[in-house]
Formats: sequence, structure tokens, C-alpha cells
Amino acid sequence: MNKLAQPHSDTREHLLATGEELSLRLGFTGMGLTELLKTAEVPKGSFYHHFRSKEAFGEAMIQRYFEHYDAHLQQLFGQTQGDQRHHILSYYAQNITNFCGSECHNACLSVKLSAEVSDLSEPMRHVLEQGSAQVINRLKDAIEKGIAEGSLTVPVSPAVAAATLYSLWLGASLLAKIKRSVTPLAAALESVEMLLQPPEATR
Amino acid sequence: MNKLAQPHSDTREHLLATGEELSLRLGFTGMGLTELLKTAEVPKGSFYHHFRSKEAFGEAMIQRYFEHYDAHLQQLFGQTQGDQRHHILSYYAQNITNFCGSECHNACLSVKLSAEVSDLSEPMRHVLEQGSAQVINRLKDAIEKGIAEGSLTVPVSPAVAAATLYSLWLGASLLAKIKRSVTPLAAALESVEMLLQPPEATR
Repeated sequence: MNKLAQPHSDTREHLLATGEELSLRLGFTGMGLTELLKTAEVPKGSFYHHFRSKEAFGEAMIQRYFEHYDAHLQQLFGQTQGDQRHHILSYYAQNITNFCGSECHNACLSVKLSAEVSDLSEPMRHVLEQGSAQVINRLKDAIEKGIAEGSLTVPVSPAVAAATLYSLWLGASLLAKIKRSVTPLAAALESVEMLLQPPEATR
Repeated sequence: MNKLAQPHSDTREHLLATGEELSLRLGFTGMGLTELLKTAEVPKGSFYHHFRSKEAFGEAMIQRYFEHYDAHLQQLFGQTQGDQRHHILSYYAQNITNFCGSECHNACLSVKLSAEVSDLSEPMRHVLEQGSAQVINRLKDAIEKGIAEGSLTVPVSPAVAAATLYSLWLGASLLAKIKRSVTPLAAALESVEMLLQPPEATR
């Protein structure tokens, strides 16, 4: 099927996926609309059929990113095999593998865009805020479930532990991007393992 | 004294300080050279006397930022009053105060620029890499000194603990920027206090 003749919903999805790819390299300001349309092979009129502005496109792009992220976490933390401690640690170990598979720097849209768009656009900042809060909540639920089932304990409240996991991984991903190396993520995982103590190791 | 008649070294410093202020709001790509020169009230010829390009300016700006950062850490961690655990925790508590003083979002150049310039410029990425490695080393030294003097213990190696502190604070600052709230930094500080255990609390 000719790309220009795609049904509307596919065009929208295709534009968002292309935008994510380009933003990961160029940032949001650096990704020109002309370049996006050229790369996606979509005419300008079609873009404005789906998005009223580049900012609205950015909002939708970040929302889509967090929807995928959340679906992945839900699936991972909802598995019946293994306990919550195992699920959380597996999630981070998988993250390290993905990072290595992305030429060690371009794995995550929230790492790439957070600092940039937080000052650029209130609507985009709002989507980032909601998305990160949802991930932190998902982590908090997994930690609480882990405590209840007896697979882990934390030396702080589940809410503080969840915010710590999120911040630590966000920062380690950024540092890994700066260093073009996986070592900051490996160090972070070691600390996550210490934070989520198996109960028998508790003092 | 007329700004345009400043001696060369002052003009260079003035350009770098103005660039840092603008970059914190606009990012590096978003900060046009014209805007920088207009804000600093410095003619273009003078800029090119000090910097061969905007990229070279960016390198010098990040280098200057980390030099100030390092001097501050050296001064703080070298104090004779109080132990290393106290110094490190005071540093983060002070960070929270500064963040609140900066309208809760514009405190830190490395938080603002890391994701953006890591893909934009290898020389700028290199300066970020060296600068962050220097801060992590400074933290590692403080942790090792704290262990030696008996003011703290860590459940991982000093190197992993230092990388964890750096990543956690970087990520929490980014999350605080997204949320326009100090709560992620407060949660991070709570976890830092748990990571740097006073020896009597050790299991």
C-alpha cells in the first residue's frame, strides 16, 4: 500500500512513531516539521488533519510513549510466575539489555525530552508529569504487593522507594547517555537490589 | 564602566554567565547567538574573539559550570567541622533550598543540557562526561573518608554508592523540574540518608 494512501489512523500512528525516532536523536526543538514530514513521507495537510500544531503533536507523542511504557509495566508486574522483587529487578535488567541494543544512548523518550520540553511547553510538561506519576504509581503498587507477599522489604515508605527507583533510573539513563556506557545502569541496578531487600536479609 | 569597553577576560566571563542563564531556560539549541549577544550587550566580533564557534562556547560554558560545582564540593567536603556523612547530607539539603530559590525548576545546567547536547556535539558531551566523572569521584572520596573516620557505611562499594548518589540526584532534579515541585528531591534525600548509614545502624 502506498504510504500516502494509508487510512487516517495509520498515518497518525506512523507520524508519532517517526516523531519519536527523530526526537530521540534531535530533541523536540531540533526536529523540524519539514524533516518529520519528509522522513514519514506524509504531506503537511495530513499532519494538520491529525494535529493542530507541533506542540499538540509533541503532547500526543509523549502520551503514546507513556501508554506503551505503562502497558509494558502492567504486563511485566502482572505475571504470575515469579514474585514482585523478581519482576522489578528483571525489568531493570531488561532495560540494560535494551540500552545496549540502542547503541548505548537512544533508548528512552522521557530521558531525552524531559529537560528540554519542561520549559518549552506547559501542555507537554503536563503529559510528562502525568506519565511519570503513573509509572511511579505502578512501581509503588509492585513494591506494596512485594511487601504483602513477603518477597521484599524497603527501608523507606513504598512511595519514597518508588520515587527513588524512578529518579535513580532516570538519572542513570541520562548518565549512561553522557558516557555512552552501560556502567551507570549497572551501578544503579546494584543499588536497586540493595534497596529492595529480600526479607531474610533485613536487619 | 561601559559593558562594551570591558577588558577581554571580563567579557568572556560575562558571555559565559549570560549563556548559562539563557541555556537554563531555552536549552542550547534554543539559545540563538543573536539573543545571547543582545542579552549580554556584546558585539559579535567580541564573541568570536573568545570563542571560535557556538559549540566552543558551549564547551567552555559546561566546563565553567563543572569548575564552580567542583570548587563548591571541595570546599564543602573539606570542612573541618562535622563529619563526611554530615557534609554529604548538608550538600543535598542545600541543593533542595537552592532549587526552591530558583522557582523550582532552573537550578542546574547539567540537568538541563545533558540529554540535549549528548547527541548534538561530541566535544560538549566529552566535557559533560569529564565533569560528571569528577563530581562522582569527589563523592567517592567523601564516602571513603566517611568510612575511614567511622561516620558512615554503605551496603555497596564506594564507587557504586557515589555513582548511585549522582544518578539519583540527577534524576530527582529532572523529575522535580517536570513536576515543578521539590517532592522528588525530598524523597531522594530520604533514600540517600538510608544509603549512607551511620555505623551504629548497621546490621
